[in-house]
Amino acid sequence: MSHDYDELKHRLAKVHDLRTAAELLFWDQTVMMPSRGAAVRAEQLATLERLAHERFVDDEIGRLLDELRPFEESELFDSDEASLVRVTRRDWEKARQVPSELSAEMTKAASEAMEAWVVARRDSSYAAFQPWLERTLELKRRYIDCFDYEGDPYDVVLDDFEPGMKTDEVRAVFERLKEELVLLIAEAASDEVSPVAGGRFPEEVQHRLSTELVERFGFRPEYYRLDRTVHPFCASSATTDIRLTTRYSERDLTSLFTAMHECGHGLYEHGVSPSLERTPLCAGASSALHESQSRLWENIVGRSLPFWRWYYPRVQEAFPEALGGVDLERFHRSVNRVRPSHIRVDADEATYGMHIILRFELEQELLAGTLSLNDLPEAWNARFKEYLGIDVPEDRLGVLQDVHWSGGSFGYFPTYQLGNVISVQIWEKAQEALPGLGGQIERGEFGALLGWLQEHIYRHGRKFTPQELLERVVGGPIDPEPYLRYLKSKYGTAVAA
Amino acid sequence: MSHDYDELKHRLAKVHDLRTAAELLFWDQTVMMPSRGAAVRAEQLATLERLAHERFVDDEIGRLLDELRPFEESELFDSDEASLVRVTRRDWEKARQVPSELSAEMTKAASEAMEAWVVARRDSSYAAFQPWLERTLELKRRYIDCFDYEGDPYDVVLDDFEPGMKTDEVRAVFERLKEELVLLIAEAASDEVSPVAGGRFPEEVQHRLSTELVERFGFRPEYYRLDRTVHPFCASSATTDIRLTTRYSERDLTSLFTAMHECGHGLYEHGVSPSLERTPLCAGASSALHESQSRLWENIVGRSLPFWRWYYPRVQEAFPEALGGVDLERFHRSVNRVRPSHIRVDADEATYGMHIILRFELEQELLAGTLSLNDLPEAWNARFKEYLGIDVPEDRLGVLQDVHWSGGSFGYFPTYQLGNVISVQIWEKAQEALPGLGGQIERGEFGALLGWLQEHIYRHGRKFTPQELLERVVGGPIDPEPYLRYLKSKYGTAVAA
Repeated sequence: MSHDYDELKHRLAKVHDLRTAAELLFWDQTVMMPSRGAAVRAEQLATLERLAHERFVDDEIGRLLDELRPFEESELFDSDEASLVRVTRRDWEKARQVPSELSAEMTKAASEAMEAWVVARRDSSYAAFQPWLERTLELKRRYIDCFDYEGDPYDVVLDDFEPGMKTDEVRAVFERLKEELVLLIAEAASDEVSPVAGGRFPEEVQHRLSTELVERFGFRPEYYRLDRTVHPFCASSATTDIRLTTRYSERDLTSLFTAMHECGHGLYEHGVSPSLERTPLCAGASSALHESQSRLWENIVGRSLPFWRWYYPRVQEAFPEALGGVDLERFHRSVNRVRPSHIRVDADEATYGMHIILRFELEQELLAGTLSLNDLPEAWNARFKEYLGIDVPEDRLGVLQDVHWSGGSFGYFPTYQLGNVISVQIWEKAQEALPGLGGQIERGEFGALLGWLQEHIYRHGRKFTPQELLERVVGGPIDPEPYLRYLKSKYGTAVAA
Repeated sequence: MSHDYDELKHRLAKVHDLRTAAELLFWDQTVMMPSRGAAVRAEQLATLERLAHERFVDDEIGRLLDELRPFEESELFDSDEASLVRVTRRDWEKARQVPSELSAEMTKAASEAMEAWVVARRDSSYAAFQPWLERTLELKRRYIDCFDYEGDPYDVVLDDFEPGMKTDEVRAVFERLKEELVLLIAEAASDEVSPVAGGRFPEEVQHRLSTELVERFGFRPEYYRLDRTVHPFCASSATTDIRLTTRYSERDLTSLFTAMHECGHGLYEHGVSPSLERTPLCAGASSALHESQSRLWENIVGRSLPFWRWYYPRVQEAFPEALGGVDLERFHRSVNRVRPSHIRVDADEATYGMHIILRFELEQELLAGTLSLNDLPEAWNARFKEYLGIDVPEDRLGVLQDVHWSGGSFGYFPTYQLGNVISVQIWEKAQEALPGLGGQIERGEFGALLGWLQEHIYRHGRKFTPQELLERVVGGPIDPEPYLRYLKSKYGTAVAA
């Protein structure tokens, strides 16, 4: 029995090596690669993806999984061994539905379309991107058709990022948010605080501060890198080799929040138990769980008053000209300012949800075929006006702003907002467990918080489904109410201040 | 028939993708990777190498190669098609001798030993490195035993870098060089020119100049990168994605020669015909041919008086304090100064050969078992004293200086000196073909030279064996006499000046 388990683990390690090699090649493509390397890079990624898929869906893995049923049942549910067999079986059964050829074609298309998107976004030319989007969407429909699903076709793509989650559940959470967000945005946006602007924030100083934050939150230099890219993300080659990416604008300090955000993703990947290295369990539980961690560090910690009581003096010292005359309260209010704006990743916490709800709705219509790609920019702009009250002057600030669709990642967007919702559910529990937390943050001490998250979430990797993990950590399912309480309390205060 | 050819090409493209992915991961490991990523990186490299090997030695490739004999014979010898079948058959027959497990074990050992070497070299601790070298050597002996060779076991490892070359031939060339080099070094080293020293050469200025040279020689920015590393090398992910690496010391301008050297390697890889992309022909013909190009650009062009007539004013302007009082003649003589020194990669053109001959001899004795690893540092130091006349004060400056043995690259060193020899054979032909070459270099124009090299060497990739290529380009086999003429003419002049 142990021989079968070792053999399974050995085979899965090879598959994982191919996947992390591909992740590293993707990181390289967006951070390091000379632009003309793109065509061959697309082929390399397709080959790695195809081989990983082929080797994973192999009959022999199915046979081993069958043989290992008694072994799995003899081990504790949350042991590495039972979890590896259980989660692999679920992955294997799903992956068997998709032909290797289609899987590789999707990877190759994603790599090529991403290059096209970079150019199209730069030129604000939806027409230049539409053929790539057409191909991506067609591949995604073929992908959905591989599954014998009941109900909503969107369930299939959602399940890739949020295993077990149904479109209806998301819709219910989002409808509840929508009710409240519209009022909350209207109220908060009337606050008269102006952004801190007019100064110049040199890139190298922002980079130094970003690095300082990442290391203060818990990364040691021998375990990570922080580089510049167009669309920030976090990649991991191993739990011991995490690649954070960010971008800088010298006009503001958005980059500090980007760094804290990607650091949150990175700490999750870095915190997976070393015993799960090179297994399919070596990753976060789901996209929403992942996002709950980036948002927890970026927003709940990183936009809080205790945090800025600690860090503002250092930032002020780093930019004496721009911030010398700006006091803590003004700065803190400015980084929590609510204003409808075009770019999702720059959106404040209150308006952010509407950006997501918009994309969630459009994605469903595109996949269902009720919205044609010719009409997409207009549909985007009309709904944007309806939800956020402002016009979209060009597609660069609208439908072309995100990389996701170029990569075929339909079903991903909703998990961002689910992550926001979950982040507050988890935060409430951390606060209960760590009574001195606010004071620690005010002293720039994050070790206890990181330790608690590590113990309850990070180390488990993908052992548990998002539902199982949430049940373990917060004692129940996803629930929008803590998040709404958090927003109301935050922006109520902001307005009153 | 065409279907079989397409199928072969398709399969080889996948193998090539795995190999270039591994090359990129290796580049990343030495240039970008956080140090703690090393353990998993070794596994990833081993997996990619094993898969590439497994897929390459597949019976089906052998069957296709058999089926394609009539097709191959119907095509011209130097066509892409006939060359691909011919060269692949030779590679396949050789690769079939080595079990995939051994191949992967060697890759993994190389990756781990390289990390150990970095530390051992830093600490000048041969004892820390010896166990890794032991393992590497044992694997290399197992590798040699896979082949049914006649004569010298060293032939087997030499053939990996210089296909078709025999140890005896190398020995003959080296014995001839040794005769002359000893006298030449003694004479040239008595020249009283002192190195340009005492100044400070800021790293960022050196980097700017290196970049300028690389682009002047012929690289456009969208096709390459130039990064810092410990032991400079050139890697390629594609002909359109070349990774040059270099290192800087602020005490001198060695980096300019390193940049020109790696640029020479890079121009070769970059110049392979696009029709050979993602095939096993997409690389240089051999290590010596490759080195002939790095040396041609670094030494024959980059240390010549015409080159410095063009470039010295710019360098002087970049470092006014250090070089303001140094005239062209003095500078040119200083970068051609002959002095026995410890580090091979910093050695001048006259002493360089002795560094190589030393390694060539020690490698043969290590593989034959006539020299034990316990005695290696002493043997190194004794022979170094004999050949170069100076003592080795610590192993960091002796046996630990090179990365090659950690990577299992026995048989590689001699190709460096063969490259020097070949570089002058090629240079003499280029001079005949391009009568205005000296004047062009004096004006910083390298297009005609690059075009000639591209046409006669680079575009062919691995279509021809080194012997075939040399025959086509210079009309004969490897010959040490042009190289000796070049050295005598160069150092004769220097002494007389």
